[in-house]
Amino acid sequence: MKNERILLVNRPKGAPQKSDFRFEEASTPALENNQVLLKTIYLSVDPYMRGRMSDRKSYVPPFQLNEPISGGIVGQVVESLSGELEEGDFVIGNLAWQKYNVASDAEVRKLDPSLAPLTANLGVLGMTGLTAYFGLLDIGNPQEGETVVVSGAAGAVGTIVGQIAKIKGARVVGIAGSDDKISYLKDELGFDVAINYKTENVYEALKAACPDGVDVYFDNVGGEISDSVLALINKGARIPVCGQIALYNLEKADVGPRMQSQILINSALMKGFIVSDYAAHFEEGAIELAKWVKEGKISYSENIVDGFENTIDAFLGLFSGENTGKQLVKVAEPENV
Amino acid sequence: MKNERILLVNRPKGAPQKSDFRFEEASTPALENNQVLLKTIYLSVDPYMRGRMSDRKSYVPPFQLNEPISGGIVGQVVESLSGELEEGDFVIGNLAWQKYNVASDAEVRKLDPSLAPLTANLGVLGMTGLTAYFGLLDIGNPQEGETVVVSGAAGAVGTIVGQIAKIKGARVVGIAGSDDKISYLKDELGFDVAINYKTENVYEALKAACPDGVDVYFDNVGGEISDSVLALINKGARIPVCGQIALYNLEKADVGPRMQSQILINSALMKGFIVSDYAAHFEEGAIELAKWVKEGKISYSENIVDGFENTIDAFLGLFSGENTGKQLVKVAEPENV
Repeated sequence: MKNERILLVNRPKGAPQKSDFRFEEASTPALENNQVLLKTIYLSVDPYMRGRMSDRKSYVPPFQLNEPISGGIVGQVVESLSGELEEGDFVIGNLAWQKYNVASDAEVRKLDPSLAPLTANLGVLGMTGLTAYFGLLDIGNPQEGETVVVSGAAGAVGTIVGQIAKIKGARVVGIAGSDDKISYLKDELGFDVAINYKTENVYEALKAACPDGVDVYFDNVGGEISDSVLALINKGARIPVCGQIALYNLEKADVGPRMQSQILINSALMKGFIVSDYAAHFEEGAIELAKWVKEGKISYSENIVDGFENTIDAFLGLFSGENTGKQLVKVAEPENV
Repeated sequence: MKNERILLVNRPKGAPQKSDFRFEEASTPALENNQVLLKTIYLSVDPYMRGRMSDRKSYVPPFQLNEPISGGIVGQVVESLSGELEEGDFVIGNLAWQKYNVASDAEVRKLDPSLAPLTANLGVLGMTGLTAYFGLLDIGNPQEGETVVVSGAAGAVGTIVGQIAKIKGARVVGIAGSDDKISYLKDELGFDVAINYKTENVYEALKAACPDGVDVYFDNVGGEISDSVLALINKGARIPVCGQIALYNLEKADVGPRMQSQILINSALMKGFIVSDYAAHFEEGAIELAKWVKEGKISYSENIVDGFENTIDAFLGLFSGENTGKQLVKVAEPENV
């Protein structure tokens, strides 16, 4: 069994480069009691990881240089000294980007592959879905007939935000970066309006799309797109700030109109969050999401790249504005046991 | 009885000028049933009124051109066709800047002058105190040992915010614009630290004053001062946005660092508000404030200018950074009845 891992070797300045990462052979320590050896089946690449590559205060601690990247992984137990997990079991956890990981049974959670496809646990039923669920419902709190705008709308989180907002009876306007994405949002996911920020004047298009103003703005991107949305918020608007993908690779200061006067005159609420703020409520969210998926009220798309060696390309692709839905890497075939 | 009033005759561009206002003789309509004729005793001049002088969406509708300004007024009944109010009674209400107003008894609230000085009803026990009370306690929610920063700290709202924060056991840092104000905040009101933004580097001074970061930032001013405070917020910080006095007279766009990434990485909450958002809870707030004033836990300062003819100067003085505490105009002596 040859193990391999991906290290962060340079802190990216601006957009990450392939040269910021290195593949190398990894050792695999012998198992201790309550540990399992896990073969990585799927790994998740997510925009927030860019933040962890810089050595500055962020919502999660930075990755260490010359140490492996870590993130959401679905693995299969190939060897077990655990009383709870046995060979063949599937688990999910926050683990290193390695072909094999050693983990204690407390570090992972067992999955039931009959309940949902394995990959869904890294997407719509995992951190991605829970991020959309809690940010939109706890902070955004959309009411029937209100207007919800979501930026990064075709991304993994954005697609779920829009669909939950529809379930709650809101009018939903998405902002995304290609005509294919626009069609996907409108035709497949039922968004009322979708705006292509690369070809349209976002402010004018939003103004036309939101004749009654904006009640909830789920912000995945920041920057000028957010400036345009914030200019249109209503009295009592709620703004969950989930991501600032426009900024992650920005080298210079992010400067724009200060928004406090808009917040003030509209008695608006802006709240940043990270999904772990809601850890105590994960189960409730996962049950609701699973129900909606089963009822066909939430559909989700996955973009699965094959091969551990393509992990970095998959990660870099998140920032080119090309991906739709949840980006995953399939590292190995699961084994039947 | 000669009546007089103050009209808005130009919408100020930038800082308001005396020429934006006009004094003129006013008529006094005959009383109808349930109405009283009120002699203005005190009137309140407040920074938020600047916002109402522009013809743009704000938290209250704009003043109309060639119509009188209106605001908080303590008046005395000089004639009554009301079953509830009689000659000599003192009332408070939102009324026109006139020497005499006609109001229905539903438009005003009767005051008991034995409970508190008349002027306190326009300040610490009125909208000013309630603004501090609800913004700080409902949005800021300071906990014992936390650090609360307040800008515009020597203003009518800021002085009360700081004292309530001290009552709640927080460490309080105020930002104000003169050494006299700094001494007042520290020596008279018990602020732990006070920073003079005109003579100190605000960011460096704040960093030294807040070694554990900022948990609550009560924002009265906006602009670069707020940029400095926001750079120092802690995880879970709360930011009531109460005013943006730095902006009211700004003609160009207010541009600075976008703060969403700070909000995001700290899971921080920013919420704009206007005191009327809390109208349903005014009584509870007024009772608590009156108790604290009685116990000597909140002291307040008033700056009372004499004479209706000095109203505009008193209003313009709010923006020169010179006033401390609540600014009032005494229009007439109350009569003993």
